Amino acid sequence: MFEARTYDAAGRVGELTVPRAGVTVETPALLPVINPHLQTISPAELEQEFGAEILITNAYILYGSDEYREQALAEGLHDLYGFSGAIMTDSGSFQLAEYGNIDVDTAEILQFQADIGSDIATPVDVPTPPNAGRDQAERDLETTQAALETAADFDAGEMLINAPVQGGAYPDLRERAARDAYATGLDIYPVGAVVPLLNDYRYAEMVEAVAAAKRGLGADAPVHLFGAGHPMMFALAAALGCDLFDSAAYALYARDDRYLTVRGTEHLGDLHYFPCSCPVCTAHTPDDVAARDEPDREDLLARHNLHVTYAELRRVKQAIRRGNLLELVDERARSHPAMTDGYRTLLDHADWLEQSDPTNKDTFLQVSAESARRPEVHRHHERLTRLTVDADTVLVTEGGNNDRFVATWGLKPPFGPVPRALAKTYPLTAEIPERRSRAACEAAADGVARLATANPETEFTIGHFDWPASALARLPETVARIDLSEEEG
Amino acid sequence: MFEARTYDAAGRVGELTVPRAGVTVETPALLPVINPHLQTISPAELEQEFGAEILITNAYILYGSDEYREQALAEGLHDLYGFSGAIMTDSGSFQLAEYGNIDVDTAEILQFQADIGSDIATPVDVPTPPNAGRDQAERDLETTQAALETAADFDAGEMLINAPVQGGAYPDLRERAARDAYATGLDIYPVGAVVPLLNDYRYAEMVEAVAAAKRGLGADAPVHLFGAGHPMMFALAAALGCDLFDSAAYALYARDDRYLTVRGTEHLGDLHYFPCSCPVCTAHTPDDVAARDEPDREDLLARHNLHVTYAELRRVKQAIRRGNLLELVDERARSHPAMTDGYRTLLDHADWLEQSDPTNKDTFLQVSAESARRPEVHRHHERLTRLTVDADTVLVTEGGNNDRFVATWGLKPPFGPVPRALAKTYPLTAEIPERRSRAACEAAADGVARLATANPETEFTIGHFDWPASALARLPETVARIDLSEEEG
Repeated sequence: MFEARTYDAAGRVGELTVPRAGVTVETPALLPVINPHLQTISPAELEQEFGAEILITNAYILYGSDEYREQALAEGLHDLYGFSGAIMTDSGSFQLAEYGNIDVDTAEILQFQADIGSDIATPVDVPTPPNAGRDQAERDLETTQAALETAADFDAGEMLINAPVQGGAYPDLRERAARDAYATGLDIYPVGAVVPLLNDYRYAEMVEAVAAAKRGLGADAPVHLFGAGHPMMFALAAALGCDLFDSAAYALYARDDRYLTVRGTEHLGDLHYFPCSCPVCTAHTPDDVAARDEPDREDLLARHNLHVTYAELRRVKQAIRRGNLLELVDERARSHPAMTDGYRTLLDHADWLEQSDPTNKDTFLQVSAESARRPEVHRHHERLTRLTVDADTVLVTEGGNNDRFVATWGLKPPFGPVPRALAKTYPLTAEIPERRSRAACEAAADGVARLATANPETEFTIGHFDWPASALARLPETVARIDLSEEEG
Repeated sequence: MFEARTYDAAGRVGELTVPRAGVTVETPALLPVINPHLQTISPAELEQEFGAEILITNAYILYGSDEYREQALAEGLHDLYGFSGAIMTDSGSFQLAEYGNIDVDTAEILQFQADIGSDIATPVDVPTPPNAGRDQAERDLETTQAALETAADFDAGEMLINAPVQGGAYPDLRERAARDAYATGLDIYPVGAVVPLLNDYRYAEMVEAVAAAKRGLGADAPVHLFGAGHPMMFALAAALGCDLFDSAAYALYARDDRYLTVRGTEHLGDLHYFPCSCPVCTAHTPDDVAARDEPDREDLLARHNLHVTYAELRRVKQAIRRGNLLELVDERARSHPAMTDGYRTLLDHADWLEQSDPTNKDTFLQVSAESARRPEVHRHHERLTRLTVDADTVLVTEGGNNDRFVATWGLKPPFGPVPRALAKTYPLTAEIPERRSRAACEAAADGVARLATANPETEFTIGHFDWPASALARLPETVARIDLSEEEG
């Protein structure tokens, strides 16, 4: 039902088959949120103009709506909306979290979702807010797991069913919840209750929540970052292995004169120029748009918001296919300090990212201090501990060969020693700045230390260009050092 | 004739009045290069569809063209091209550099430019290639300066005249050349012969060349980064104070199936998705475009290239107006290690950037190790050396007040001590990551050291959260330290 085709870090381009809709959705995918009462851009236009393959709407709102309930039951969602792609429905869990109770249970709302022709339905889970205590998070999880088990017993026919992963701010609970959810055999795994984190720019905690959930799920589990629709964080979330995003933001923000960019949100009133190439922004100026009456202004802003959102999704997919997703994440990490924290936290999981990261990609670009902590560096360091050196004396050097030594290896920050046989393969074809960061030299020193420790019989000498003391301090004392920049001078 | 309206770092949004065209051009501006023999997108369309206010064409090619010479003389450039904005013309210097000699001199080609109705003309300067020796660079400069003096004596009427700044790879020569060029009283100052640097990704050297030229010019000198048309480096070049760019790339690259992005160049054949929101990329897929025959394919790619180029220019202008240009440069610095080098080199000039950087902006965002070297940090450190502390004991702390001390100041990486009176003003309203970089803590320690050195009678204590040893080592021994993270534990 879900197949990951190409990986980069833990991100993947994949295909989600949605049997009831008779369609296959390419992931990472965006699900625009359709509010039945307020359609800024019609589902038909989303499909035809923006290429939407899937959308999401709220079954609980339809269920409680005198206006739409009978119509949805009679016509089915696809006719109601004029949309031929896949339609996912939410269950009212959000309303439960917001208002404390709702008047349906999982069995009822699943039946309603089945009856209105939903392609992917949702049980009533309990979103645990991130500041909740551990006791509450555990209690909520029991209720959620019970709902998932009810859902697993439900006779859904071709309809897929979401299995939300909760657990609040407790990574061990998130991981356990994910394992339990995965064990139900349901279909799609939304990581729930991250909206409060995203609203408060708590990206580091979002990363921890998703990484924990992912560790509890199988690689064949499609993961939905529920409530995440700002293009600013698509690259980061995709690198963690999120496959689905949903966006109400495109419409809600437009209503409020807010303009999405991959670097954050701008208020229309603060824009002197449109920093965008989309059809709206090339045909209008901010003053033009500000002077429009509603619903024109909202319509134009919503269209811009959708264009920038879908373009970022394509950029993320292209980056995964090209193997430079982490370079894109690095760039996006500079849009806000909280995004920088998110990226630094992502790299705490380099060991886990490394498991799915392809061994061969285009070119590793070292573009920041953070690059020194990428999974490729982690993998090379692991490899160095297993390498056997069969020479008595080895020069590991940033400069040229030297006949005084039996063997000469390359030395490349942030990787460290480069055996001749690997010099022309990924990632040691890496391009690195002339001005190396201290972090890169230190990581390279760690690589030398690993190789030296694994080969205690060999005498190692390193040839470096003016490495900082903090890097040299990481080398075993037995490793001799030559500063090539002094020799040159 | 040129007025800088808003600064950010050394970048500015300004207005260039071009009297012969009767127009005012907003800068930073892009001059699309028009090849009279090969017009991929017509000048009229550049003006109407893309909002081009100015373009550049080569007077030497027209001068040597049997097809166009008489027509240009008879109709004038504006009618020949159907363009009502400003038209700059080049003189053949490029051909001189390429082929060793040309068959006109400055007086002749200036007269021709005047006769065909050019709004901004160029004398015949000598572009010194970046790898040339100092002797050649000095000889070339003498020739260029003689051409500029000829141009200064030329009776140009309302026509403006370029005064190119050469000097090769020698910053002192670039600065002297700029001073001499500025002294001629000519109008616009192209920094010349940077194309070989840009082609080879030698962005750090480009930064040195421009910074040196800028130091030799007055603030009222409009500066053209001659031959620079890749949107990838607009933010970096604008931050240095470049006001004009010209692009042949949009058309040349399109001919070659190359697709511009702000992160670099992609070959059409490598694109699975269009990572862009422009009208071309939202209406087509890479497969669609690849399947088109010429000239359709070239036309579509040229349009995309122009859209992305103009959008980046608007993004740069918006960033200058909002005061977050350096955050944009930081992001762009992650597109390639050579761009990282360029950014690191830009920050070597923080003292100079600080001179034009506004004292009040929106919010300083610390988003990388490099942020710690921004001009705002430099300015705050300078200020700290002049601050008088009138308390015997001062706690400078990342935590709360402590009654044991006469006064408590804030402590904020990368700035350092924060006097109470400045806490709510730019830049100490800075947003910083929770996970501070070592560079930020070290810069903050340098700030503490400056304050302590300026106030030897005061006893300083710092309260820090787990600063690295490398930061603590930068403090004078007289400064006492409390690790607040240990106290908490």
